[in-house]
Amino acid sequence: MNLSPLARVMIEPLVRNALREDLGRAGDLTTNAIVPAGFWARSVLRAREEGVVAGLDLAKLAFELIDPNIALQIEIGDGAIAGPGSVIAAIKGPARGILTGERTALNFLGHLSGIASATASLVAAVEGTRARIVCTRKTTPGLRAIEKYAVRAGGGANHRFGLDDAILVKDNHIVIAGSVTQALRRARAAAGHLVKIEVEIDNLDQLEEALAEGVDAVLLDNMGLEALAKAFAMVRGRAITEASGGITPESAPAIAATGVDLISVGWLTHSAPQLDIGLDFES
Amino acid sequence: MNLSPLARVMIEPLVRNALREDLGRAGDLTTNAIVPAGFWARSVLRAREEGVVAGLDLAKLAFELIDPNIALQIEIGDGAIAGPGSVIAAIKGPARGILTGERTALNFLGHLSGIASATASLVAAVEGTRARIVCTRKTTPGLRAIEKYAVRAGGGANHRFGLDDAILVKDNHIVIAGSVTQALRRARAAAGHLVKIEVEIDNLDQLEEALAEGVDAVLLDNMGLEALAKAFAMVRGRAITEASGGITPESAPAIAATGVDLISVGWLTHSAPQLDIGLDFES
Amino acid sequence: MNLSPLARVMIEPLVRNALREDLGRAGDLTTNAIVPAGFWARSVLRAREEGVVAGLDLAKLAFELIDPNIALQIEIGDGAIAGPGSVIAAIKGPARGILTGERTALNFLGHLSGIASATASLVAAVEGTRARIVCTRKTTPGLRAIEKYAVRAGGGANHRFGLDDAILVKDNHIVIAGSVTQALRRARAAAGHLVKIEVEIDNLDQLEEALAEGVDAVLLDNMGLEALAKAFAMVRGRAITEASGGITPESAPAIAATGVDLISVGWLTHSAPQLDIGLDFES
Amino acid sequence: MNLSPLARVMIEPLVRNALREDLGRAGDLTTNAIVPAGFWARSVLRAREEGVVAGLDLAKLAFELIDPNIALQIEIGDGAIAGPGSVIAAIKGPARGILTGERTALNFLGHLSGIASATASLVAAVEGTRARIVCTRKTTPGLRAIEKYAVRAGGGANHRFGLDDAILVKDNHIVIAGSVTQALRRARAAAGHLVKIEVEIDNLDQLEEALAEGVDAVLLDNMGLEALAKAFAMVRGRAITEASGGITPESAPAIAATGVDLISVGWLTHSAPQLDIGLDFES
Amino acid sequence: MNLSPLARVMIEPLVRNALREDLGRAGDLTTNAIVPAGFWARSVLRAREEGVVAGLDLAKLAFELIDPNIALQIEIGDGAIAGPGSVIAAIKGPARGILTGERTALNFLGHLSGIASATASLVAAVEGTRARIVCTRKTTPGLRAIEKYAVRAGGGANHRFGLDDAILVKDNHIVIAGSVTQALRRARAAAGHLVKIEVEIDNLDQLEEALAEGVDAVLLDNMGLEALAKAFAMVRGRAITEASGGITPESAPAIAATGVDLISVGWLTHSAPQLDIGLDFES
Amino acid sequence: MNLSPLARVMIEPLVRNALREDLGRAGDLTTNAIVPAGFWARSVLRAREEGVVAGLDLAKLAFELIDPNIALQIEIGDGAIAGPGSVIAAIKGPARGILTGERTALNFLGHLSGIASATASLVAAVEGTRARIVCTRKTTPGLRAIEKYAVRAGGGANHRFGLDDAILVKDNHIVIAGSVTQALRRARAAAGHLVKIEVEIDNLDQLEEALAEGVDAVLLDNMGLEALAKAFAMVRGRAITEASGGITPESAPAIAATGVDLISVGWLTHSAPQLDIGLDFES
Repeated sequence: MNLSPLARVMIEPLVRNALREDLGRAGDLTTNAIVPAGFWARSVLRAREEGVVAGLDLAKLAFELIDPNIALQIEIGDGAIAGPGSVIAAIKGPARGILTGERTALNFLGHLSGIASATASLVAAVEGTRARIVCTRKTTPGLRAIEKYAVRAGGGANHRFGLDDAILVKDNHIVIAGSVTQALRRARAAAGHLVKIEVEIDNLDQLEEALAEGVDAVLLDNMGLEALAKAFAMVRGRAITEASGGITPESAPAIAATGVDLISVGWLTHSAPQLDIGLDFES
Repeated sequence: MNLSPLARVMIEPLVRNALREDLGRAGDLTTNAIVPAGFWARSVLRAREEGVVAGLDLAKLAFELIDPNIALQIEIGDGAIAGPGSVIAAIKGPARGILTGERTALNFLGHLSGIASATASLVAAVEGTRARIVCTRKTTPGLRAIEKYAVRAGGGANHRFGLDDAILVKDNHIVIAGSVTQALRRARAAAGHLVKIEVEIDNLDQLEEALAEGVDAVLLDNMGLEALAKAFAMVRGRAITEASGGITPESAPAIAATGVDLISVGWLTHSAPQLDIGLDFES
Repeated sequence: MNLSPLARVMIEPLVRNALREDLGRAGDLTTNAIVPAGFWARSVLRAREEGVVAGLDLAKLAFELIDPNIALQIEIGDGAIAGPGSVIAAIKGPARGILTGERTALNFLGHLSGIASATASLVAAVEGTRARIVCTRKTTPGLRAIEKYAVRAGGGANHRFGLDDAILVKDNHIVIAGSVTQALRRARAAAGHLVKIEVEIDNLDQLEEALAEGVDAVLLDNMGLEALAKAFAMVRGRAITEASGGITPESAPAIAATGVDLISVGWLTHSAPQLDIGLDFES
Repeated sequence: MNLSPLARVMIEPLVRNALREDLGRAGDLTTNAIVPAGFWARSVLRAREEGVVAGLDLAKLAFELIDPNIALQIEIGDGAIAGPGSVIAAIKGPARGILTGERTALNFLGHLSGIASATASLVAAVEGTRARIVCTRKTTPGLRAIEKYAVRAGGGANHRFGLDDAILVKDNHIVIAGSVTQALRRARAAAGHLVKIEVEIDNLDQLEEALAEGVDAVLLDNMGLEALAKAFAMVRGRAITEASGGITPESAPAIAATGVDLISVGWLTHSAPQLDIGLDFES
Repeated sequence: MNLSPLARVMIEPLVRNALREDLGRAGDLTTNAIVPAGFWARSVLRAREEGVVAGLDLAKLAFELIDPNIALQIEIGDGAIAGPGSVIAAIKGPARGILTGERTALNFLGHLSGIASATASLVAAVEGTRARIVCTRKTTPGLRAIEKYAVRAGGGANHRFGLDDAILVKDNHIVIAGSVTQALRRARAAAGHLVKIEVEIDNLDQLEEALAEGVDAVLLDNMGLEALAKAFAMVRGRAITEASGGITPESAPAIAATGVDLISVGWLTHSAPQLDIGLDFES
Repeated sequence: MNLSPLARVMIEPLVRNALREDLGRAGDLTTNAIVPAGFWARSVLRAREEGVVAGLDLAKLAFELIDPNIALQIEIGDGAIAGPGSVIAAIKGPARGILTGERTALNFLGHLSGIASATASLVAAVEGTRARIVCTRKTTPGLRAIEKYAVRAGGGANHRFGLDDAILVKDNHIVIAGSVTQALRRARAAAGHLVKIEVEIDNLDQLEEALAEGVDAVLLDNMGLEALAKAFAMVRGRAITEASGGITPESAPAIAATGVDLISVGWLTHSAPQLDIGLDFES
């Protein structure tokens, strides 16, 4: 399985920046003091708990940029599940480089695998329904592209990548425009032919207005289960339906059971805890 | 109270980068389509739950870089507690700019306030003891400086900022050096006079070796409470003592009660959930 | 009329880069040698031929970055027509800065106004039909965002901004997938809910296949007028129809008359001649 | 023939920037969805019309930065003529990378080959005379170095690369200085010993003044043929003579026949249409 | 007197980079700990020894970028002599910002004033002769533009700014070409009309060859006084003459007395000691 | 001996920047005109005077970035002494690349070797005493990391790398705080557990105050020998002692004889003359 669409030209600046952030102006004081330059070592990236792996390309690049003599061999690729204690990748090369790159590699890998794992748990929670789990723009500043990749690695799908790749009419836009109808008309007049339009809906009156005007997707925000089911019934396939608002693995199945197409979850990218992955030297 | 040591020259690249990430190549399609250019609005940043605020400088800068006509007035500054529903800042200016900058501003503010709030809860848990809560290098790539600032805003203190500002001898260094003694000798020989040396200790034999050799701080990693207390007693003030490993608000008081100087917690920066803060338009 | 969605944070790097390219390592040798530092002047940006203006934000920024004392007053805004000899903007300030920034400002303004003007001539050619003129990804490296803005300033619309904001299945993709059907199925399986799918069609068999499978838009590439008309009839509103291939102001009306929704034109962004605009000092 | 003085360190930032502009935050959605990761292909860069090639180094680098497994074999090098349908280069490697890099590579290659071809047509028009074709600073922002390279690839020569590598006294400088003589004196006083001085001349009185004062080159702007010939006779080899102003392949021979050393042409870099080059997959 | 041609757009990246280098990831620990945020102060930049000032624009910008409330008032401008103890500029504003920016401002100012002062001492040494003092490309990496500016501030002139703004044929080029004549012919064939050509000459035979071929300037490298005088006589005004090689204020007058036009000195930019300038707080 | 802790990821931006500074927009005009592309050469980096080498990694990278076919073989590594005329490294590869990269490589190597050599001379001057030679933050803007590395290569040690890696309380801080005691208390309250605190002392009263309060190091600034000796005696090992102020190889031995631990010298990094190293082609 090869999930990675992250061309090196896209991720290299992130990894270089992270390495410089950690190396500072003097480099790895500890390792340079203690570890001889010619000392080679073997080590592994090991999962300390179960989860879905994501971000190996970035971890690999972190080691390679520190020392091109370091080779990382992937055992459990992005998108696959690593059980507790299992080896995700084997690393060999100069020990200095491995130790110096370790934290940067793990920071990327743990963060992205955490997002992938959280996504996978939600995806599992709605298995058997038609609902897909999607992320939002509530991402860590600077890491959006790779966080959204991690969501895909975990089996989820992506919402907008930015303000510029789709139109999402939100409550404040509607207030300023005067009505859902007015807002959607202005949106359609400005949208290119490859730009989809979604509108955030707070109640069924707004939904009726949106469906009458025509729209690609409706975001049903913070509605109760009953309202959601009623909304889904009203739509009758005329738009993609998306539910959002405080969704957890516990509440997701019932929401998915309403028939909605998408369940969007902000915390996947802003609050998922990292997956605990460590680097162990082998004797 | 003025916690902020974040000179604009340090944070401006982060904010510009985050804005470009969100604006992409076409800017805010929705807002530009719907909101008239001359429309001014008033809005507030409001806490949706209780927590400690951090990151207002970055939020303010996000709005200013989008439109210098937007003014942000701070009501609850960095380091202070915002109750649920309380207004953190008032914003007025062109509505387009407010809507376009909203997500970037909130992503910084929610992320950093989440870290500050998590820190504050741990700080509260050990109140009355001598233990300080400190963070680690397990930070989000690219955001270390501001995440460590958020820890301070929450009442915590900072461990190393990078591989280059102190020596921390870890288990793998000791293995390669052959012993704690050897590792510390190499470290001291290389260290500048303003560089402190800390060593990670897994058992009391290593601790004895370290104290015999002399060291600024000892990191007592994943020790039980009893071992910690014994270690603290052995040290007798000859080194700063730091406990680490899976510490939570629940387990922290007992650890603090062993007498250790510092409790370091990785999840403050890698897994703290964001603080829920929203932007509300005012009519 | 306010067309500009170009936030300063988006264009500032382009303008700074262009100024540095022109200033090199020694700055404006001629002006610094000849023009006294305290000498102020008034000048105008004047159209030397008729066309549609685009890019004033960039021109203004070029002068401001050289010297914040230079003020540029817009007379004919982006998207409006400037007749030959008409004044687009008045500039006053230190003469050194005006002369030093002149070429950079004009290079942006002439290039973007050239694209806007070419677009406007095509838009005029199809007036009265339902066809919209759109651009492509055949843009000048580094300038895509502002070139696509210039197309909008000229009355056109935008196609994809990059490889990542919509799916466009082209001939080589179809060959590799084995068929239009296979290609579209793979595309839909991977596409997010806000991502539209378009497919390039070379003949009516492929079109039938695409319509059977379902697609948002069809790109009818290099078809004759008759085939285009036949294709449009086959589609019956089930997809947006786009014609492309060697379109000129002369050939556009007949193509538009076939009923297609969009006419895409690569040369708008890769070969439109610049609009001749000069800077005249006033005595 | 090896024309290329473009060290990789000079062009790599341009190519990386162009790739990121096209890949955006999500990469090549279409290709990643449809083309298997392990699928290799052979393709060619083919001229769709006759012209002079320029920019192969940039095209090659675009593919290599996307995927180092892609090999580009040059058949018709920079500066050589490609007939319609001829193969400029053969490319083989992973199909994903070829498709993802295609547009960026072609945008560079088509743009620069367009400039080289336009230059070559002017060079051919003045063949047999002593006149050389030169470009100006009217270049596309950010691309000056490579556009001037393309002019050389087409057989032309370069005027100033920026405001800092020679002095060119223009009409506004003369007005501010008070006279040609004053302007040239100030220029000479400031110029380093390796900096040449050219002055723009609008009439023969100014020319007399310039020659009396001494100058390296005179730019005879927008003069009629008769005035040009008279000017050239007046100069008698005391300065390089350059004619400029609305020059086309049709008008160039007569201008060259006046004896001028140089004919400078702005549209080579600001308005030359791209050369149509495509990428064809081979079965 | 206004020497400064350093547009802010040229120097801002240097100053921002230097500030970030000093601030690191945590900012000014000392000042933030000790100095209250609201504390304003007055201070002066004071020369601790006599010298020529250069670089005030960079020092001013360093303070402004740290805190826009800091105002720097210039007393002795770039290019003027500051006696020991004299005040170069007065600074007032928040004490934190003054202390934080101090070292960066002084590092620029001391370095550039050192170059200006060294230049001035050489310029004084050859006063009354026709010789000008010029610098070389032996500059500190990254600082060439401002170091060459400092040479001008000290009364010197500039040689080439880079490999691309003039041709300088050196010994190794001549060896590879086979002879001075061959090297100069190749150079002239490639040079644009605004590019001057200089050739490095080791003996009088080479000089004869160069003069026969024609050249703009000759670099007489490491010749004795007698040979220099002979060379100067041979040239008879047909080329600019430049002497180089181990020149000091002591040896310069005799070299200048040979009649050469230029004396080039590498150590001005690579080895001039800084001018001692300090920042004094005023009570 | 392997001194180098300069990871490529740290130095590559410096070298790329320096090469671009020298190549400008047109590259190496002279070499490209005269030297055939296919011409290979052998050359050596040769010391023209005795000194300690530093910076070979940067020189090597300069050549490799210009042309990966250039191989540099180190003969005398960083930290070792090169006698006059000795070969530091052998270089072979395409002559164009060697000539084009020469100046950038030499500018780094000469500058850093100059610092290393100056350091070594001071280190030799205090041999046999307990004093170590350390540098300051008076570095060339942008080059701090590599200049401090050069100090280590010369046998010295490093003081702070920036404002953020240790606390150094200086005279102005003390004035603002009101006393040494107050300043140190504020400093300790803010300092992390791995941050050392040093205080600048002007007289023995201040020293007493500092020792009473407790501090890691005392900077004895501009004290006479007698005062230094008295200060050292007062300290009695309770703090690291550092002497500073106008120290030369001549004055250093007597200062070292007072017993101080460190002698800090600003001119090592701001005024050390470069080491004269040249590149010789071999026939």
